[in-house]
Amino acid sequence: MKIRKAVITAAAPSQRTLPLQRLVDRDGQEKSALQVLIEEVVSAGVEEIAIVICPGDETPYREAAQEHAPRLTFTPQADPRGYGHALWCASEFTARDPFLHLVGDHLYLSREKRRCAQQLIEVATSQSCTVSAVQATRESMLPYYGTVGGHRIPRSRDLYQIERVAEKPTPTEAEQTLNVPGLRAGHYLCLFGMHVLNPAIMDILRDAVARTAADEKIGLSPALSELARRERYLALEVRGDRYNIGVKYGLLMAQLALALAGNDRDMVLAQLVEHLASGHMQPIPPGT
Amino acid sequence: MKIRKAVITAAAPSQRTLPLQRLVDRDGQEKSALQVLIEEVVSAGVEEIAIVICPGDETPYREAAQEHAPRLTFTPQADPRGYGHALWCASEFTARDPFLHLVGDHLYLSREKRRCAQQLIEVATSQSCTVSAVQATRESMLPYYGTVGGHRIPRSRDLYQIERVAEKPTPTEAEQTLNVPGLRAGHYLCLFGMHVLNPAIMDILRDAVARTAADEKIGLSPALSELARRERYLALEVRGDRYNIGVKYGLLMAQLALALAGNDRDMVLAQLVEHLASGHMQPIPPGT
Repeated sequence: MKIRKAVITAAAPSQRTLPLQRLVDRDGQEKSALQVLIEEVVSAGVEEIAIVICPGDETPYREAAQEHAPRLTFTPQADPRGYGHALWCASEFTARDPFLHLVGDHLYLSREKRRCAQQLIEVATSQSCTVSAVQATRESMLPYYGTVGGHRIPRSRDLYQIERVAEKPTPTEAEQTLNVPGLRAGHYLCLFGMHVLNPAIMDILRDAVARTAADEKIGLSPALSELARRERYLALEVRGDRYNIGVKYGLLMAQLALALAGNDRDMVLAQLVEHLASGHMQPIPPGT
Repeated sequence: MKIRKAVITAAAPSQRTLPLQRLVDRDGQEKSALQVLIEEVVSAGVEEIAIVICPGDETPYREAAQEHAPRLTFTPQADPRGYGHALWCASEFTARDPFLHLVGDHLYLSREKRRCAQQLIEVATSQSCTVSAVQATRESMLPYYGTVGGHRIPRSRDLYQIERVAEKPTPTEAEQTLNVPGLRAGHYLCLFGMHVLNPAIMDILRDAVARTAADEKIGLSPALSELARRERYLALEVRGDRYNIGVKYGLLMAQLALALAGNDRDMVLAQLVEHLASGHMQPIPPGT
């Protein structure tokens, strides 16, 4: 199994402009968030990328992709019918091939030389099945993530068999159905926003689209849960971190993480300390 | 003298996308850099704003201005003939009125309740003359700024009479012609990127445009220097800081400054410390 295709979803009205944000990557080069994502994917061996966009966003995205633009196929999502529907919009592009899938509002920062997408693709290739990247996450963060339940693969350090997937579960639901033996107490395996998916996911989404009213949203988590019932589906605890650039101060934290993990670490730390020490970043004293 | 008009220059090819960058303002609201600039200007009493843009950028700028869009007049700079030429492109808009001028690639953060534009407009109004905001700046930073020479107004703490203006002077040139008695040793008064200008500046720029070849750039500093020869021209040391979002990590530092000066200070400091302490922002160990 060779993964040649990737799908990046960026059609949600609230996340449209996020891939266009500019930041300085670990290598010290200024890029759009989209370029950083594309490099993540291309460095893992992907050759063609579909981007699911809001209709009309193709031009700024092409510009933001710079030299990678020729690799891109744009798939507009005509109606905002949810994340699962957005992914399904790329089903003609993926055809019967397995593909890497990333969300367009996250940046991924590996804690080792291999980037996160590479780590994931290597496992999917050696295991020949669907694999979702996950991260052990505190219970308090459950309202933000899809969460998987299952059990650790015997003698593996970072691989889990997924039995079910729930979108933003309540703590009670999580405790009853998503407990994973062996994790630290109060922790769950939450989705990382990066998957290697089999074409079977598109069949499941096609059925969901067909039986769902046009004004209802179609999620990805129920489709992943259905996939877990049908076939072998693994979770990999990647050695890395995800930064959601769609939340408040998300871009700040992502930029800081990239800068402190990269070539310019010393310079940025020095600037930070200088700024903090200058007293310019103090709160305005009340009554002045 | 009431200042009702402002001109923001954002036409340089390298700074076109900067006002479209999104960040979280001191009030905790997510905005484009353009919105933050417009609020700076509007809170100081300005009613109409001209933005000098690259041809074709009107639509994204209108979108980025949100509810302020009706205040905007767009003035395309057809050829990239320099900063002075860009400002002159707004001469029909300013007509015979004094106006506030800001550069589109900076954000301004006051160290008191009154914003920087407000501080500047109050002085220009009470003194009825052109006033440039300046900041005492170390000699090592001269390659980045326009620099003014002159002398402190007697009995004033923060006002200077400007005698000349030089763009990015060498240390020798600065020492010989831009020394301002009373400043800390090795410091000069550098432009802050914010001015209240008389219509006379447009006359000077018109002459410069008329006598300059079409392929030569027209700077603002020589025109300001000419203005200093013709009429009373003051510099105000504003109580605030400017953040150039066009330099590497400039947006990071601006966002950090806004966050640490604003409503979300405690939350952002806590997030910063948590991220730093998590060890996720460590450099990748070599050889892993």
